[in-house]
Amino acid sequence: MSSLSPRLEKFVAGRPDTPVVAIDLDIVEERYLALAAALPGVSLFYAVKANPAPEILSLLRSLGCRFDVASSGEVALCRDLGAEGHEISFGNTIKHRDAVAAAHELGIARFSVDCSAELDKIHEAAPGSLVSARISCDGAGASWPLSGKFGCSPSDAVELLIRAADLGHRLGVSFHVGSQQLRTGAWDVALIEVAAMADDLARRGLVFDEVNLGGGFPASLGDGAPAIDEYGAAIMSAVEHRIGGLDARLAAEPGRYLVADAGALVSEVLLVSQRSVGDSTRWVYLDVGVFTGLVEAIGEAVRYPITCDRSSEDTLPSILAGPTCDSLDVIYEQHPVALPAELAEGDRLVFAGTGAYTTTYSAVAFNGFAPLRQVVLSDPASSSGS
Amino acid sequence: MSSLSPRLEKFVAGRPDTPVVAIDLDIVEERYLALAAALPGVSLFYAVKANPAPEILSLLRSLGCRFDVASSGEVALCRDLGAEGHEISFGNTIKHRDAVAAAHELGIARFSVDCSAELDKIHEAAPGSLVSARISCDGAGASWPLSGKFGCSPSDAVELLIRAADLGHRLGVSFHVGSQQLRTGAWDVALIEVAAMADDLARRGLVFDEVNLGGGFPASLGDGAPAIDEYGAAIMSAVEHRIGGLDARLAAEPGRYLVADAGALVSEVLLVSQRSVGDSTRWVYLDVGVFTGLVEAIGEAVRYPITCDRSSEDTLPSILAGPTCDSLDVIYEQHPVALPAELAEGDRLVFAGTGAYTTTYSAVAFNGFAPLRQVVLSDPASSSGS
Repeated sequence: MSSLSPRLEKFVAGRPDTPVVAIDLDIVEERYLALAAALPGVSLFYAVKANPAPEILSLLRSLGCRFDVASSGEVALCRDLGAEGHEISFGNTIKHRDAVAAAHELGIARFSVDCSAELDKIHEAAPGSLVSARISCDGAGASWPLSGKFGCSPSDAVELLIRAADLGHRLGVSFHVGSQQLRTGAWDVALIEVAAMADDLARRGLVFDEVNLGGGFPASLGDGAPAIDEYGAAIMSAVEHRIGGLDARLAAEPGRYLVADAGALVSEVLLVSQRSVGDSTRWVYLDVGVFTGLVEAIGEAVRYPITCDRSSEDTLPSILAGPTCDSLDVIYEQHPVALPAELAEGDRLVFAGTGAYTTTYSAVAFNGFAPLRQVVLSDPASSSGS
Repeated sequence: MSSLSPRLEKFVAGRPDTPVVAIDLDIVEERYLALAAALPGVSLFYAVKANPAPEILSLLRSLGCRFDVASSGEVALCRDLGAEGHEISFGNTIKHRDAVAAAHELGIARFSVDCSAELDKIHEAAPGSLVSARISCDGAGASWPLSGKFGCSPSDAVELLIRAADLGHRLGVSFHVGSQQLRTGAWDVALIEVAAMADDLARRGLVFDEVNLGGGFPASLGDGAPAIDEYGAAIMSAVEHRIGGLDARLAAEPGRYLVADAGALVSEVLLVSQRSVGDSTRWVYLDVGVFTGLVEAIGEAVRYPITCDRSSEDTLPSILAGPTCDSLDVIYEQHPVALPAELAEGDRLVFAGTGAYTTTYSAVAFNGFAPLRQVVLSDPASSSGS
C-alpha cells in the first residue's frame, strides 16, 4: 500500500510526535543522479524554494548541483554552505534592487527577466551579467501551472535581449513548463519558440550563451507521470532537433523532482465526524492542514498518496481537513480519500511526496499552531531537525 | 483618499522598512468599546486567531474582554497574560485531546462541539464543562463563509445536547454567520433555529446556559458594511424577539471587527511590468503577497482599501502580485486596482484593514522571504515589534 523507503517506514513506525515531515537524504541523492544521467550535459540548478534544508543543499552541492534562488534569503542559505557566485542563478523574475546589487557583489551573474523595467534594474545593479529572458508557456499538462504571472512572449523577449546585448549583457533564455508537468513533450513546444528566437537573434549577430530548460520534472504522486528517463529522452531529443545547432550551455532548475518523494508527512487524526445520520461522507480532521504545510492541496491541485496505520478491508470515503477554524483549511473535499471504516482519533495518516513545498509554506502561527516540523534522515545513526 | 488614523499616517510617512503591518492600539480600544455598547449584556470573547499580539490581548483584557481560542498555543498566549480559565472559551470544534485535558486542568470550561465523537472527547477530558453545540449557517452575505467544515444541523445539535446533559454537562449553542458578514439580519435567521432548539430542549426539561452569537462583525473594507450600532440594534432586537424568554447568558466572538481597521500594511513596489506593447493592464509586483500576510486575498475574497504615496490624476488598472515564484501569489487580478499611471519601483502601497488575519497567516520562509513583521503603536513615545 505504501511506497515509502525503508528508512521512512522505520521513522513512521517509531511514532514520532506529529505533525512532522521526514526527509530521506538517500532518495534526494538517487534522484539527483537519475536526473543528471537523464539530462547529460545539462547544468542542474536546484530550486532552493522546494526545500531549503541545509542538509539537502549540502548534499546536492557535494554531488555537483548548483542553485536556483528566489530571494536574498535563499542566496544567504547557499552562501552559508560556501557556494560561490557561479554556482547560483537568480531565477525569480521579480527581484528587489538591493537583492540584485548584493548578489552581484557576491559574484552571482545569472538573472532572469521578463520585462523592460527588470532589465533596467539588472543593468544598473548587476552590469555585465547574463540576462535570461523568460518566455511564457501555457502550462497545459501541469498540476501547478505558472503562466500569467511570469514570462513574456518570444517576440517581446527578443526585443528585450537585443536591448540587453546593447547594454553589454550576455544572453540567455528560460521557460518553465509548469510544476509537476505530466507531458514529456512540453519542452519540445517551448524549444520550438527558443529556436525561432535564436534565428531572430542570429540575424542581428547575437547568440544565446545559455538555454535554461526550467523545472517541471514530476514527483511520484500516482498521477501517471512517466519515468524520468522518458523525460530525459524526450527533452534531449527536442534539444538536438530544435536547437542542436546552437553553441549554448544547457541548464535546468529541478525542485520537486529531487525532494518531493524523499519526504513523508506524518499526521494524526484528531476527529472523525459523522455529523448527520444520513451523511454518506465523513469529515476527518487532522493535526495538519493547508496552513501547516499542505498549501499545495488548495484547490486540490496536488493529491498526495496517503496511507493509514490501520488496515481494513472496509473503507469509507473521507473528506480530509486541517485543525484550524478556517474554511479554506480543507485538504481534500472534491476528491474524498478512501480510509478504513473503523478510522478513529489517534490513528495516523502518512502523506507521501511531501518533501517539496511544505515546510517553508507553513504559516508562522495561524490559529496558534506551530509551523510544520522537519526531520532530515541520513545515515542510520543520525537525524537532525531543521 | 486614505482613511488611516493620524498615528498610522505618521507611521507610514516615516518610511519604515517594508513589508510591515502597524497596529494602532487606540483603534482596537475604540472598536471594543463601540461593540460592547452595541451589544449590551453580551460577554465578548476576542477571537485570538485574528491577531494574537500580546499588546492587543493585554489591552482587551484590561477593558474586560475575554478570549476565544483555537488551540493550546492560543491558550498559552492568554495564560501568559494571566488570564484565568473562566476568561477563556475553546471555540474550535476540532481539538486535540491533550489540548482539551490541559485546558480543563487550567479551569477552562467552555468547549464547542459539532459531532458525537467530539462530545465524547470533551466528556472524557473535561467532565462537567459547558458544551456548546455549533450549528451550521449557510454563510450567505459573508466575504469568508464558514459553512461545510463546521457545524451540524439544529436537530442533530439537539440530539448532541440531550446526550451532553445526560453526561452531566451544561449546555450552550453557538453559530457563526460567516466572517465579514454584511447582512445585519443574518443573526436573526440563526436565532430562529436557536429558539426552536430551546423549545425542543425545554420539552425534555433542559435549558441553554449560554447562547453564543459568534463573530462576523465587519471591518471597514469599503464594501458597504453597515455601522456597528446597526448590527447591535438588529442583533439585540432579534435576541429579544426570538429568545427573549430564555434565561441564558449571551456571548459573542468578535475578531476581525476589533483589529482589522487598526492595521495598515506598508509595502514597496518592486517592479511595474508592461510586458507587451498592447497590454491594457499592468502587472505590479510588491514585496508582500499572499504568502507574507495577504492570504485572505486568495480568490480575491477580501479586497483591502489601497492607497499609494504617489498622487496622480491619471491612473491605470493594475494587477497586484507578490514577490514569490508561485502563480498562486497574485493578490488582485480579477479586480485590478487603479494606481497612478507613473507608478514606479520604490513607490509604496498601503493596505488598510490589515490588522486581522495577516501576521500569523504568513509563511515561515516561502521562497526565502521572512514572515510579515508587525509593529504595535500605542502612546506616541513607544512602539514595539512582535
